[in-house]
Amino acid sequence: MKEKIGIEGISLEDIEGMRNIVDTAYRRTMERYDKGELGFMEVIQKDCECYRLSDRYKEFKYILVVGMGGSILGTQMVYEGVKGVYANELNSKKVFFLDNSDPELLYSILKIVALRETLVFVVSKSGNTVETLANFFILREKMKKEGCREDNVVIISSGGLLKEIGKRENYKIFEIPENVVGRFSVLSSVGLVPLSCMGVDIGKLISGARDMDKLCRREDVFNNPALMNALIHYMFLNRGKSISVIMPYIERLYRFDLWYRQLWAESLGKDGKGQTPVAALGAKDQHSQLQLYLDGPKDKIITFIKVRKFKEDFTIRYKGHYLDGCNLSQLINFQQLGTERVLTSMGVPNISIVLEDLDEYTLGKLIYMYEMTTAFMGEMMEVNAFNQPAVEEGKKITRELLEGKGKGEEVVKDYIIKI
Amino acid sequence: MKEKIGIEGISLEDIEGMRNIVDTAYRRTMERYDKGELGFMEVIQKDCECYRLSDRYKEFKYILVVGMGGSILGTQMVYEGVKGVYANELNSKKVFFLDNSDPELLYSILKIVALRETLVFVVSKSGNTVETLANFFILREKMKKEGCREDNVVIISSGGLLKEIGKRENYKIFEIPENVVGRFSVLSSVGLVPLSCMGVDIGKLISGARDMDKLCRREDVFNNPALMNALIHYMFLNRGKSISVIMPYIERLYRFDLWYRQLWAESLGKDGKGQTPVAALGAKDQHSQLQLYLDGPKDKIITFIKVRKFKEDFTIRYKGHYLDGCNLSQLINFQQLGTERVLTSMGVPNISIVLEDLDEYTLGKLIYMYEMTTAFMGEMMEVNAFNQPAVEEGKKITRELLEGKGKGEEVVKDYIIKI
Repeated sequence: MKEKIGIEGISLEDIEGMRNIVDTAYRRTMERYDKGELGFMEVIQKDCECYRLSDRYKEFKYILVVGMGGSILGTQMVYEGVKGVYANELNSKKVFFLDNSDPELLYSILKIVALRETLVFVVSKSGNTVETLANFFILREKMKKEGCREDNVVIISSGGLLKEIGKRENYKIFEIPENVVGRFSVLSSVGLVPLSCMGVDIGKLISGARDMDKLCRREDVFNNPALMNALIHYMFLNRGKSISVIMPYIERLYRFDLWYRQLWAESLGKDGKGQTPVAALGAKDQHSQLQLYLDGPKDKIITFIKVRKFKEDFTIRYKGHYLDGCNLSQLINFQQLGTERVLTSMGVPNISIVLEDLDEYTLGKLIYMYEMTTAFMGEMMEVNAFNQPAVEEGKKITRELLEGKGKGEEVVKDYIIKI
Repeated sequence: MKEKIGIEGISLEDIEGMRNIVDTAYRRTMERYDKGELGFMEVIQKDCECYRLSDRYKEFKYILVVGMGGSILGTQMVYEGVKGVYANELNSKKVFFLDNSDPELLYSILKIVALRETLVFVVSKSGNTVETLANFFILREKMKKEGCREDNVVIISSGGLLKEIGKRENYKIFEIPENVVGRFSVLSSVGLVPLSCMGVDIGKLISGARDMDKLCRREDVFNNPALMNALIHYMFLNRGKSISVIMPYIERLYRFDLWYRQLWAESLGKDGKGQTPVAALGAKDQHSQLQLYLDGPKDKIITFIKVRKFKEDFTIRYKGHYLDGCNLSQLINFQQLGTERVLTSMGVPNISIVLEDLDEYTLGKLIYMYEMTTAFMGEMMEVNAFNQPAVEEGKKITRELLEGKGKGEEVVKDYIIKI
């Protein structure tokens, strides 16, 4: 607020002055919902039972998810958010994500897993995503050679070649509702089918989302966290904050950053508008990015996510040192508070989201709040948050290059230094 | 260039017009070097033998590096850049990095490693970094209980409490030269001692840096890749490109992004100036960030890093499909080219760095080129690239909070939604 960060801040009167824009954004969002455009709001009302695979799928030692962007970022985020960054080292079921066309990535995964003991989820809404198909074609050939059965593969898709193959080969297929956009799809079959197999309590996840949904339907911006979050970001975007930094102070939420990054960039970055999302992580980025945030250009709004209770903790012992007797969780949370205070004193706008603990329920709440925030923000900015028209051209060029098998590889560069 | 991206681009005449700024930046950098301020340029002339530990340190099954920011990001970057993202799963020697004050991170690592079989590197230039000390204090207590010996710990530091403890406990100590700043220190003892133990060929790494050093000493901007890279970024910064995106198309370079991110942010982000670095990764971020880069605000300059030869490759087979017969490496490299072309056609300035392959030698080159780029860029922007004055205040507040043992935990927020 202005009283804290000075002239560049916002005041209660400023917020009051936005009433029209807020009301319009709220109304348009609910209109879209009524027209059936917002599948992400509908899917959380479904019974979770429909996402559960039968017991014979539970015996696999390895799980491999193949997908790109919205087909995989949400699953990675929830898996790591619940199970932690070293889940594979600590659990008997090992989970891998194949989310790039880098051949070294595929090679490494194939060296680690035994394909016959691997349950492969292939996820693509269109069913035609090029990297997903490429990886799947290679996997499929190897799986056949190794005598894998139809149970080894589960398809999550709403069409395209992928579904065609799925039907022909008698793979289990889960539909993705037409009105659920990729980056808003983690709480649909896209995320919930694989997450359920990974031992995530999807019921609790959905229950968090449903509770948040109630709050996000309130018309009063002061009681609607998503509407308020959108409004604050919108007002600061108009005050020149072209960058939105998200900075959780817990390792398990780093992939939440990467999920948010797609949601915010792809939904809002169009027609020359947009706010560039930046993924940061506390406390470590205090040793990397904080100098810039504090003393660089004043073009950022920062969101902290803080978790009060960690699953584990340690007491620090070293006689005579000021750390003696402190807990490690106290240290990280005081680092967040120190950073928040110094940013505020330097006039950098910042928001804190405080979670009592981080589990499926609070994560479900957080995810849904950000989905609703993005929907509201799109309406405020007057962009369509649910399409991504600009990325088609690059795909076309890539396909032409591939079909020409190498033509155009040597591109005329403007300027080349050969060394 | 202007001919490609239009009015917002630069022309050869524009570059000629910068001659004074370029010459001054070059001269000032070399003056700093002559005055002994640029330790990062000096250290690459040292004989690598001085970084090698004796054979008894080679028998440990686990390696754990404890450090923050510049003390650890470079080591992580080179380790992953050389050994790959699944090195721990594929090699018998397991490497862990403890680079946060998150208690869950420490807990997980302690569950995985056996401390008696673990070589712990504790790295902090000042020897007083709070997270590093906190983690080390906890580890130290546990190591004593488990009967670890002095060989279990190696200290890399130039002072502070850490060095004091090292001397008292008779740990092996490596010095960090005073004139080497943390984020420029990967090619000093900070990176080279642990990397050598991890099986990285540090001789090749340094040899790449030395070869690049020769190129970076050329006065002619058209033949000096670092000076040109700095100039291009400087000119586009002045044309409103407040964000610098780095986007390698290979998984192994993702941690290079994170290293670059500190180098660029902390060196240049001061006095209200700076350019916000953004870490991206191709091809996957085409499904996350590309929409924003293409059709969002025109505030970005993008650097691609492309590797021609991957260590492994696969041929894609699916009759009748346009991917049939292509290699996966072709796909990812054509995706880069498609993205480059469409960005260019949309007027987004972009640079491509092409590596024949990615190994210690080319990585050494790349690292050193970015260090020199940053040094030159600092001089062009007229900021001191080698300090980080703004981060001290937050550390002070955190320390006060810790000493008050909880005082001030409840901060008065401007605005709170409790849910």
